[in-house]
Amino acid sequence: MDRGLTPKIDAIGNQFGVATLAPASADVVLVGSHLDSQPTGGRYDGVYGVLAGLLAVEAVKARCLDKPAAARRNLAVVNWTNEEGARFQPSLTGSSVFTGALSLEDAYACADGEGTTLGEALSAIGYLGTTPLDKNPVRYVELHVEQADSLEKSSTDIAAVFHSWTTRKISVIFEGDYSHTGSTPMALRRDALRAAGRAIEALYQEVANENAGAHAAAARISVYPNSPNVVAGRVRVWFEIRHEDEAVISAISDRFLRRIERESADIKVAVSIAVDERRLGTALDPDGVALILSAAADLGFKAMTLKTSIGHDALAIQKCVPSSLIFVPSQGGLSHNPREFTAPEALDKGYAVLTEVLWNMVTAKE
Amino acid sequence: MDRGLTPKIDAIGNQFGVATLAPASADVVLVGSHLDSQPTGGRYDGVYGVLAGLLAVEAVKARCLDKPAAARRNLAVVNWTNEEGARFQPSLTGSSVFTGALSLEDAYACADGEGTTLGEALSAIGYLGTTPLDKNPVRYVELHVEQADSLEKSSTDIAAVFHSWTTRKISVIFEGDYSHTGSTPMALRRDALRAAGRAIEALYQEVANENAGAHAAAARISVYPNSPNVVAGRVRVWFEIRHEDEAVISAISDRFLRRIERESADIKVAVSIAVDERRLGTALDPDGVALILSAAADLGFKAMTLKTSIGHDALAIQKCVPSSLIFVPSQGGLSHNPREFTAPEALDKGYAVLTEVLWNMVTAKE
Repeated sequence: MDRGLTPKIDAIGNQFGVATLAPASADVVLVGSHLDSQPTGGRYDGVYGVLAGLLAVEAVKARCLDKPAAARRNLAVVNWTNEEGARFQPSLTGSSVFTGALSLEDAYACADGEGTTLGEALSAIGYLGTTPLDKNPVRYVELHVEQADSLEKSSTDIAAVFHSWTTRKISVIFEGDYSHTGSTPMALRRDALRAAGRAIEALYQEVANENAGAHAAAARISVYPNSPNVVAGRVRVWFEIRHEDEAVISAISDRFLRRIERESADIKVAVSIAVDERRLGTALDPDGVALILSAAADLGFKAMTLKTSIGHDALAIQKCVPSSLIFVPSQGGLSHNPREFTAPEALDKGYAVLTEVLWNMVTAKE
Repeated sequence: MDRGLTPKIDAIGNQFGVATLAPASADVVLVGSHLDSQPTGGRYDGVYGVLAGLLAVEAVKARCLDKPAAARRNLAVVNWTNEEGARFQPSLTGSSVFTGALSLEDAYACADGEGTTLGEALSAIGYLGTTPLDKNPVRYVELHVEQADSLEKSSTDIAAVFHSWTTRKISVIFEGDYSHTGSTPMALRRDALRAAGRAIEALYQEVANENAGAHAAAARISVYPNSPNVVAGRVRVWFEIRHEDEAVISAISDRFLRRIERESADIKVAVSIAVDERRLGTALDPDGVALILSAAADLGFKAMTLKTSIGHDALAIQKCVPSSLIFVPSQGGLSHNPREFTAPEALDKGYAVLTEVLWNMVTAKE
């Protein structure tokens, strides 16, 4: 980097650019997000937080030149590895390894649909880093587009996220048997793809039956052998159920799992659970929320607090470092879509709040 | 080949081994099947017909040494390219190009799931042949395992196939829109995978409603972007419906297509048909059927005639050359499965019938 930041890359490929603002201090405030995307991702999700973070680090650094004694701790921009989990599951990989919630070995072992592991993929692109962040992280701040429409609907500029929903991610394997599609009588088929199709519909119906505003999805499927003339013998589907209240998730998922077991058994397909992961709703640092609201008010922007239904690196980092998450509006709430859009003026407001929050965190006495 | 056969490979990769039994004749009797398989295929489907065909050619050739003047035409074993259509659709590629029903250009352009074309794949393995069969094919005979259980159930050794079912293959594209699975309210989703799941179940139900013994399947699916956090915006499913009576197929498929259009529209997913192919039921050469039954009777084997629900190269070749199809039993009717099995004695009976049929065809006056 020729921007005067010290580059660091850790063993899971997280990238840091460190601005040494307080040479006597071992502490560092982190700001950033992720540069990875989805196959159908837009231009803002993640990228906005890294680029705005980089510019904010430079702005804070420039302010320190005017007030050399003001900085009490250092500042670094970060790009976390594999936030999206598009190719390797679970998502939030880099930030989870950073906190120790996910072991490096388990992260390396994650395999994509072709069997390539994350460790192999990082090695292939030269990102098995050997220069971990050698400072003590004391705060993390992430600026992101909302990817929902609460801000837009209420004509609000800034959200200070104070909590996240709980998410249950259940990866289910449907096991039938292979046979010829042309000759096998319908009653003898053990069609794992049919069982998966029923389960996808069942998930939607159980969410509707609960009528509590939960979000749920089945967006990834793996079918074997996936050949037009072979009844599918083995299918895996990645399901997820999200709500702010864990009891709602349990109610939906318990009914859902009982139902797909029954509906699959009716067609002689066995159901087993490969992965069952609960990401509990997380409270973000209340001091950070107050700082964001205060900075927005000082700048004359309309702000609100918000719960997010979506996973973010800030929620993973909060496990060991007080973390903050700032949202700006997303047009129509649309994300993971090439039409994702946030107006430049709205992006500028987020950047302005971020810079003030970081300045405060770097210079604050406590 | 060191078996005294002249090797030929044509432009679509069909492989021939020609035994010149009647040098003065331009005519050749073909015998064979296919060596390609399914990802979950067994040891008999196709391979049996090529190997038994090769041995039968050698047996006929040996008999000609004893009776030099007996052969009135030549004999060749053949391995047709891509019968299964596991990687490249449509199936029956090599035999369809051989008859001219499929143009070489269209065959070369078939792409697999990764976008590699059949032309590229054949080139990569050196099988864009330049030595087409330079003789006039007058008959084709294929020996195959039944892949259904009619022979086993009736304790019959040999079937002379006289006709095939009609098959309608419909490849449907479901088009919704990409959005974030975490934040998009359920009512706003346009989930193409949900629409596909409903359609798979609908196919089974419409077949059951018709209650006419049709076979139908949805065994291949392609989902984009197939990432756990992106509502699937585009899904393609390969459907097929088979029955001996085309009116039954029309009744089922008309109801099925109307239903999936309605059920998809309910969730704001559009339906379009990418491929709609009808493979009409084909009558095989009646003289061949008589020859098979006669040969089986001479050998003391129990034989029957049969309609097949499955596509075979013989059905494609019948378009321009009188063709015959001989079945031996399949244990439990199971095929496209590693547990596919036919007892050695049953295989031997098929080989014995094949040899007599070929001897007759090579030596017959007409």
